[in-house]
Amino acid sequence: MTEINCDMGEGFGLYSMGDDEALMPLISVANVACGFHASDFNHMRRTVQLARGHGIRVGAHPSLPDLQGFGRREMKMSREELANCIIYQIGALKGFLDAEGMSLNHIKPHGALYGMAAQQEHAAEAICDAADIFRVPIFGMAGTLHETVYQGRGHRLVSEFYADLDYADSGHLVIVRSRGAIDPERAAARALRAVTEGKVASQGGKDIAVRADSICIHSDTPNAIDVLRAVRDAIGPYLPA
Amino acid sequence: MTEINCDMGEGFGLYSMGDDEALMPLISVANVACGFHASDFNHMRRTVQLARGHGIRVGAHPSLPDLQGFGRREMKMSREELANCIIYQIGALKGFLDAEGMSLNHIKPHGALYGMAAQQEHAAEAICDAADIFRVPIFGMAGTLHETVYQGRGHRLVSEFYADLDYADSGHLVIVRSRGAIDPERAAARALRAVTEGKVASQGGKDIAVRADSICIHSDTPNAIDVLRAVRDAIGPYLPA
Amino acid sequence: MTEINCDMGEGFGLYSMGDDEALMPLISVANVACGFHASDFNHMRRTVQLARGHGIRVGAHPSLPDLQGFGRREMKMSREELANCIIYQIGALKGFLDAEGMSLNHIKPHGALYGMAAQQEHAAEAICDAADIFRVPIFGMAGTLHETVYQGRGHRLVSEFYADLDYADSGHLVIVRSRGAIDPERAAARALRAVTEGKVASQGGKDIAVRADSICIHSDTPNAIDVLRAVRDAIGPYLPA
Amino acid sequence: MTEINCDMGEGFGLYSMGDDEALMPLISVANVACGFHASDFNHMRRTVQLARGHGIRVGAHPSLPDLQGFGRREMKMSREELANCIIYQIGALKGFLDAEGMSLNHIKPHGALYGMAAQQEHAAEAICDAADIFRVPIFGMAGTLHETVYQGRGHRLVSEFYADLDYADSGHLVIVRSRGAIDPERAAARALRAVTEGKVASQGGKDIAVRADSICIHSDTPNAIDVLRAVRDAIGPYLPA
Repeated sequence: MTEINCDMGEGFGLYSMGDDEALMPLISVANVACGFHASDFNHMRRTVQLARGHGIRVGAHPSLPDLQGFGRREMKMSREELANCIIYQIGALKGFLDAEGMSLNHIKPHGALYGMAAQQEHAAEAICDAADIFRVPIFGMAGTLHETVYQGRGHRLVSEFYADLDYADSGHLVIVRSRGAIDPERAAARALRAVTEGKVASQGGKDIAVRADSICIHSDTPNAIDVLRAVRDAIGPYLPA
Repeated sequence: MTEINCDMGEGFGLYSMGDDEALMPLISVANVACGFHASDFNHMRRTVQLARGHGIRVGAHPSLPDLQGFGRREMKMSREELANCIIYQIGALKGFLDAEGMSLNHIKPHGALYGMAAQQEHAAEAICDAADIFRVPIFGMAGTLHETVYQGRGHRLVSEFYADLDYADSGHLVIVRSRGAIDPERAAARALRAVTEGKVASQGGKDIAVRADSICIHSDTPNAIDVLRAVRDAIGPYLPA
Repeated sequence: MTEINCDMGEGFGLYSMGDDEALMPLISVANVACGFHASDFNHMRRTVQLARGHGIRVGAHPSLPDLQGFGRREMKMSREELANCIIYQIGALKGFLDAEGMSLNHIKPHGALYGMAAQQEHAAEAICDAADIFRVPIFGMAGTLHETVYQGRGHRLVSEFYADLDYADSGHLVIVRSRGAIDPERAAARALRAVTEGKVASQGGKDIAVRADSICIHSDTPNAIDVLRAVRDAIGPYLPA
Repeated sequence: MTEINCDMGEGFGLYSMGDDEALMPLISVANVACGFHASDFNHMRRTVQLARGHGIRVGAHPSLPDLQGFGRREMKMSREELANCIIYQIGALKGFLDAEGMSLNHIKPHGALYGMAAQQEHAAEAICDAADIFRVPIFGMAGTLHETVYQGRGHRLVSEFYADLDYADSGHLVIVRSRGAIDPERAAARALRAVTEGKVASQGGKDIAVRADSICIHSDTPNAIDVLRAVRDAIGPYLPA
């Protein structure tokens, strides 16, 4: 079994990013931006309400404090500072979940924070420091510090497979600041293989082991809706009823 | 009976404002800044921990989104937008209260938001929209829309007396963006009279009716500690044991 | 004679707003956002380079400090503070003009600042305080404080006609925070009438006197390119060769 | 010959940092913050006016975009992005210099940006990209990439000695996010030795070669004024008349 998670609510002020209204009905859980890489209090309210309207569970998608860089620029911050940064954002999102009578489903760190936590112990520990308070699973990638640190601290790792990002030969994700359209069928085939075989081909053509507890689709991919539909079709039998 | 409330945690980054460590032991409840007029995730964490160490209850001190103006510049925002802005901040603070096993004591809007809610119905309603979610009393001023709107919406108003601010003849507070030292004895005498007689002399020398459920002392007054000590001495018999 | 001006460079970080590449070749002068309601240092650089590539003159488009509200929320700021805010932004833009060997063409205040300057003397004076330094014409609307204050201070007013906004019966523009597509032919007809007759019909059907030294088209109107083409076609004979 | 430079105008909103009014008369040149690690348009105006009143030359003190971290957190940014970031800030400062009829004296990168430029080529190149436009000397440290890159690009390096910071055995500065009072006499003795012998003792007790074209004193050191007076007294004969 797997599920589909999607980053949602990544507009800001008058700016929009991703067609949340079209995507929301097709996903399993939403990772909702908390105002630090994207979103603001108005977008968060609307996104949580949109999720609720479709019965979609909501997780927090906290980031480094970097709105201009969309949270994709690594910053040197201590474990304590990162933990505080994450707690603030999750708390803020919980305010809107409280408003709608919903509970927090998970934590999924965003962008550079996600990448830092895969490789830098202090970042992974900081995420656990926040998770200690909110007691929900953490989304991440098996085979990285996400797995060893989160699980070592007693948190459940929901291991993600990225249908729409490339994997380096090292097994790490290739993070870019902005992306173009991708081939929906290729993404779907990769997702199906990840779910059924636990493998993906890297940029260099190597087979890499992956654990696909959840399939991530990015809402800011220009053709995200096509990618999402193709992936859903491909892995339908493995999705919750 | 009355109590002393104080705005706390109003530093930002490397900047400090107010000697919270000296003031905290002398107050009854702390209004903790939430990052929109002052504070950030690090200051919030430390301030909540400081309050907990002294057994001081913590309320949220949300503001208009205006760090540069310290929340003292009025902004045109709709009721819905104000409500979202307030919910975000209270939620964020609750994250840190959760971290320390504490609960939210009250909501006290800050600066221009406080003043707007005294006179503009949509702002007072927005504060109630947030209070509906968190179900705690709201700090404000009897005799203004704070009283009629908050109580009309079923929320408890904790009516404040400002020992360190001037009252206009109209009964409204005179809000300034930065302030100098004030006379501690004068503040103490005003506080005592507010508690025992329910009156204060306005700038124009008129006696104005006030209800002093709580006495507010501003931590950013340069001699706040002297003011606080003088007020405490004066109203000691009326403070909780 | 008239010209077409257009607000440009209003993206931010990964967010885009308006199809500047398509619009730039069709306009006479660009009002370039300076990072306070939209844009950032990367967008400013690219926008100035884009303008230079098409031989388009560049003016500064300074705003209230309100990125989340896109500069469309009125804020209470003093004349001195507004002047400083405007000088900062124009200076920043000039840095990029210097980089490209270009000079500043004009100042066009954005959004709420523009509206404030039409009606509040301290705002109009603040704009002149900045214009005193940079010595370029100011875009605004004849018949408002823009005309009396700017010209009284010895600055040239370039009076704009808004082809894509409604005029209230009072002659003031109707400012909205976000807008939908508009009818290109109607905008073109209005522009032509403004240029040839100096009149526009208000929301209430009244004829209002306008002076169309420059026609403004907003790049964030969803069908801005169609509007711009229709207006250009209509007023072609009145545009500079 | 040498001179004394000092970081100035590092307040923000209601927050103050450093006693600029006391320090300004005692320094040779001021490095004025540009709103990205500290300061805002109001502080910049006042600081430039203060410098002018004392006949002090003004350089730009641009930073990474990180107000909360006071520009002391390293961020991953490309050369192009860094250059744009720096141009924006210098341009903004030049607006205020234009207002006072002053010209830009130099560029001194702040905090983490300064440190990055000492060790990372893309950062040093980005600073030169900005300096190409404004054609003023760059403050930095001989013996680092500051020297090789700036001079290689044809810019003049004004080599600084830090009287109030520790040097690691590697010759690099030890950057901290917040600092306590330091011993004025020790700072003075270090400054004098740097000027006369071109040497300083590292944390590990090693003698390191330094070139003291300019002595830097930090205004945010709690006893900056005492440090500044002691250093001035010690190096008096080497200061410009």
